[in-house]
Amino acid sequence: MADADLVELAKRRGFFFGSNGAYGGTAGFYTFGPQGAALKRNVEDAWRDRFTLQEGNREIEAPTVMPEAVFEASGHLDTFDDMLVECAECGSSHRADHLVEAVTDIEDAEALPGEEVEELIADNDIACPTCGAELAGLDVEDFNLMFATDIGPGDGQPGYLRPETAQGIFVEFPRLKEYARGNLPFGITQIGPAYRNEISPRGGLLRLREFTQAELEQFIDPEADEPPLDRVRDVDVRLYPATEQQAEDGDYLDTTIGEAVEEGVIGSPWVGYYLGVAQEWYERIGVDTNRFRFRQHLAGERAHYAADCWDAESEVDGDWIEIAGFAYRGDYDLSKHDAYGDDSFTVFKRYDEPKTVERATVDPDMSVLGPEFGGDAAAVAEALETLAGRDPDAFEGDTVTVEVDGSGGDDAREVAVDAEVANFSVETVTENGEHITPHVVEPSFGVGRTVQTLLAHAYETDEVDGEERTYLSLAPEVAPRDAAVFPLVTNDDRLVALADRVAADLRAAGLAVAHDDSGSIGRRYRRQDEVGTPFCVTVDRDGIEGDGPETVTVRERDSAAQIRVPVDDLAEELAGLRAGGSFDDLLDRYETVETDVETE
Amino acid sequence: MADADLVELAKRRGFFFGSNGAYGGTAGFYTFGPQGAALKRNVEDAWRDRFTLQEGNREIEAPTVMPEAVFEASGHLDTFDDMLVECAECGSSHRADHLVEAVTDIEDAEALPGEEVEELIADNDIACPTCGAELAGLDVEDFNLMFATDIGPGDGQPGYLRPETAQGIFVEFPRLKEYARGNLPFGITQIGPAYRNEISPRGGLLRLREFTQAELEQFIDPEADEPPLDRVRDVDVRLYPATEQQAEDGDYLDTTIGEAVEEGVIGSPWVGYYLGVAQEWYERIGVDTNRFRFRQHLAGERAHYAADCWDAESEVDGDWIEIAGFAYRGDYDLSKHDAYGDDSFTVFKRYDEPKTVERATVDPDMSVLGPEFGGDAAAVAEALETLAGRDPDAFEGDTVTVEVDGSGGDDAREVAVDAEVANFSVETVTENGEHITPHVVEPSFGVGRTVQTLLAHAYETDEVDGEERTYLSLAPEVAPRDAAVFPLVTNDDRLVALADRVAADLRAAGLAVAHDDSGSIGRRYRRQDEVGTPFCVTVDRDGIEGDGPETVTVRERDSAAQIRVPVDDLAEELAGLRAGGSFDDLLDRYETVETDVETE
Repeated sequence: MADADLVELAKRRGFFFGSNGAYGGTAGFYTFGPQGAALKRNVEDAWRDRFTLQEGNREIEAPTVMPEAVFEASGHLDTFDDMLVECAECGSSHRADHLVEAVTDIEDAEALPGEEVEELIADNDIACPTCGAELAGLDVEDFNLMFATDIGPGDGQPGYLRPETAQGIFVEFPRLKEYARGNLPFGITQIGPAYRNEISPRGGLLRLREFTQAELEQFIDPEADEPPLDRVRDVDVRLYPATEQQAEDGDYLDTTIGEAVEEGVIGSPWVGYYLGVAQEWYERIGVDTNRFRFRQHLAGERAHYAADCWDAESEVDGDWIEIAGFAYRGDYDLSKHDAYGDDSFTVFKRYDEPKTVERATVDPDMSVLGPEFGGDAAAVAEALETLAGRDPDAFEGDTVTVEVDGSGGDDAREVAVDAEVANFSVETVTENGEHITPHVVEPSFGVGRTVQTLLAHAYETDEVDGEERTYLSLAPEVAPRDAAVFPLVTNDDRLVALADRVAADLRAAGLAVAHDDSGSIGRRYRRQDEVGTPFCVTVDRDGIEGDGPETVTVRERDSAAQIRVPVDDLAEELAGLRAGGSFDDLLDRYETVETDVETE
Repeated sequence: MADADLVELAKRRGFFFGSNGAYGGTAGFYTFGPQGAALKRNVEDAWRDRFTLQEGNREIEAPTVMPEAVFEASGHLDTFDDMLVECAECGSSHRADHLVEAVTDIEDAEALPGEEVEELIADNDIACPTCGAELAGLDVEDFNLMFATDIGPGDGQPGYLRPETAQGIFVEFPRLKEYARGNLPFGITQIGPAYRNEISPRGGLLRLREFTQAELEQFIDPEADEPPLDRVRDVDVRLYPATEQQAEDGDYLDTTIGEAVEEGVIGSPWVGYYLGVAQEWYERIGVDTNRFRFRQHLAGERAHYAADCWDAESEVDGDWIEIAGFAYRGDYDLSKHDAYGDDSFTVFKRYDEPKTVERATVDPDMSVLGPEFGGDAAAVAEALETLAGRDPDAFEGDTVTVEVDGSGGDDAREVAVDAEVANFSVETVTENGEHITPHVVEPSFGVGRTVQTLLAHAYETDEVDGEERTYLSLAPEVAPRDAAVFPLVTNDDRLVALADRVAADLRAAGLAVAHDDSGSIGRRYRRQDEVGTPFCVTVDRDGIEGDGPETVTVRERDSAAQIRVPVDDLAEELAGLRAGGSFDDLLDRYETVETDVETE
């Protein structure tokens, strides 16, 4: 399938389209139409079911606007930049690293210093893609990708639209750990908008300025907690390890999660566990496993805090796109907020048995230190205390030497203190536990990219009754609608009334139902095929005439096979199919209908 | 219940709390914890079921960041302001109108001109609420409540966080009408964040800077479309009409939707229809109807485009708060975007029969007008065309007089044209229909305020087994968790294993399940009572010993009554209860358990 076909179908049938078309469009922003919003929501619900409910995790919902202090701590304020070059002629903005990559062999120009990129632009005579003017000699600037705003008037504070939902979780860790009653491991999830003010947004649902993330932050004690790896040990996965990517004849590694973790291909068992859960989940919602892989980040690609990182990638229109990331983030996030914030981002880890430990301490005689060091006396006492913890042996001689910053901005200097004045001693104390900073394992999913993958992998064409058709073979669990209901003809009030009643009954049973009475049945089937509706229910005369119970025909989308089902059983059967039941079972249990009804 | 108790419980039990506490907090932003996010999502799902699925409407999802042009058209850029006064001493910001209302009898100071508010501040010696400094003499400014940002770098454009989800619907009307195949009426819904940069945010979930709206835009042909009023004709409602609010002994009007519409108390049948739907929905999700009313806007309160507007109001902690608005917005929104945007915001309304109409037209002889009027000739021809449409009789004399703006900025002047030169004629044309601008009926719900109402109305205290307890009597459909599962004791591996299996089975059946094995059963019950979990499942020895099938006890939250249910029936019974089933039915069908198990 060509990408253009899918984009056209997405727009025509209400999956997604560029926003604000009446005002010339706004690059990087897409609106999900009725079909797309339903598909996206079903993907989110399926994710919630698997990654929150089934795992016993907790989901929160934090604001999208956050104050600057959060991003000072997280590092986004300083480092969440792309390389920007603005054309002096036409004023258009471009990713400088992408321009360089397009005309050189360099694969990761973002890793180069700005000056080097400026030189490469000059050396390669790179021109503005918009107007063709020379870009040589222009500055390459760091452009921060966060959308900035002001919270409150006048005395307000700078704020930013969050670049990832994760920060809304990390920043509330002091409270979230209370809800877990201080026990590790626990997982917090969030599904919601995130924002990146991209310099050059791409088309479709790739690289949007506003997008939806589904993130899980798994907080663990790295020394004690292990994932329930048995649950996914036998899950088959296609891995693309860093070593294979760098090898000349590198290839995929088709293996199981259990083997990959045992052999160290996947470094962290927690990352391995979530790769397995994700593999099963992607299969469940309809990703084509032949167009799917887990690719390990190369060393240079990883954020500096990420010990091991894998991306889930899907093939869409010939390109591999990242649709999720699985990172072992260590204690980076919580340590930063612990250092910058006013609250504690640690948990108290109780020992199995209380430990008796020796602790060196001092109790300096201030009546001596005061007269001797004046304004520096307190600093000297503190330095002694620090030294006692670090090097108790230092107190064995007659005098102890410590370094203090002088008061009033004087330079640091060494001072000698009489050992007796320090009052050094070693106490025996009983400790019940210690404060530890949990580590974080983060599966992070792009919802829009998942939606785009599902559409691309579900897009099919075939021939039915001699006519070519396009259909989306979406899994019933995620299809925008569960069923469509048609009266075969609209000039028979009995059919119209029954179709209305059937649609209302299905809706009351919680199913998302379309009702369509416009055009031939064949056209109505095609319309539903194009939006991936798995089952079409047609109310015809055969179903209401005769002595038996009222019946309707149910047509399965992919096979175009039809069966006749009593109206009273319909809601339950469709609910069963939505929950993963097989249409083949119904083919066995109900009368099959010849498909020439289509041409009526 | 005092508000403080609920706020404390909300924070302690994970419903909601002020965001970014580790960074001093950020006024106007709240985070929903695990319980609150689940409750909020259940409210959204229930709203979606009623206002989207059951109504056959379509839901979309538009970006939260929108370009400036949208808000020029909508009027938000010019008029979405509050009155701001900034203290010269301490720099704190205040709503000037609120300060005036607090010390005078004025009820709607926002309607006064800024100068008058400045005078009232001076005349009443109003001081800064923060530092006590005099505010007299300071400017009262219009502060726009939209959060502003920049989309893209350098050559980017100004953007704003949407102040209502509605604009994301209106602006895409040209495409949305295609999905409805041009047929009115149709409804579009959206649930998502909206933003108002409040000058002085209030506490709790009232007046937040970021909040969630659930909005329905019902597009109708005002001359042809009628709502299905029969469906809600007999719904009982408590109305507080504008006349009663203004009368000295004004009282509520307890009536039905049918009567209120027939007697004209509710001006628009469409508004009446949605008040009826909303009344039933609020009852379904657990709003206390004795603490609920529909209040009509007073004439001065209505937006200028709203013909009739009602608020749903709930009583929370002694105050009536607006939790939804129902406005007949006429063609205001679509007309504005039609005028400002580059696309058509009308629909083509086909006549039942083609109409033959006479249309007056002119075909001016430019070879005469050209020499005579030079640069103004085209303007003269256009004026003749306009005149023909407006007043065909004007062409009956020998000459026709029209007014034209002079070219080159000259003043408008009258010119006389020979009637023959105008070539006036009346043509007979057949028209199949006309372009009309749909009217909009908008039910708009505040999701956070609904959540706050449900918590306030569900908050109960009583005595169980001689102990006082606090519980939330939330409806099973919206309660954060469907059930909690406990092993009675943790030192019996059989109980622990069965509890794990029961929890996993319930989760696999799509239920949200808590698992708790910490502390006495009584304490675990209390914990679940406080978060409104409707059913607690306890795995005890009686249930696994003996010959019969495995059983567990199920305790209903409000009555604390307990029954013994086979494990194999549990998922289905709990799903039935969640869908609205009655626990009394189960009391009839299953063995009752004495409640002294609580004290074990």
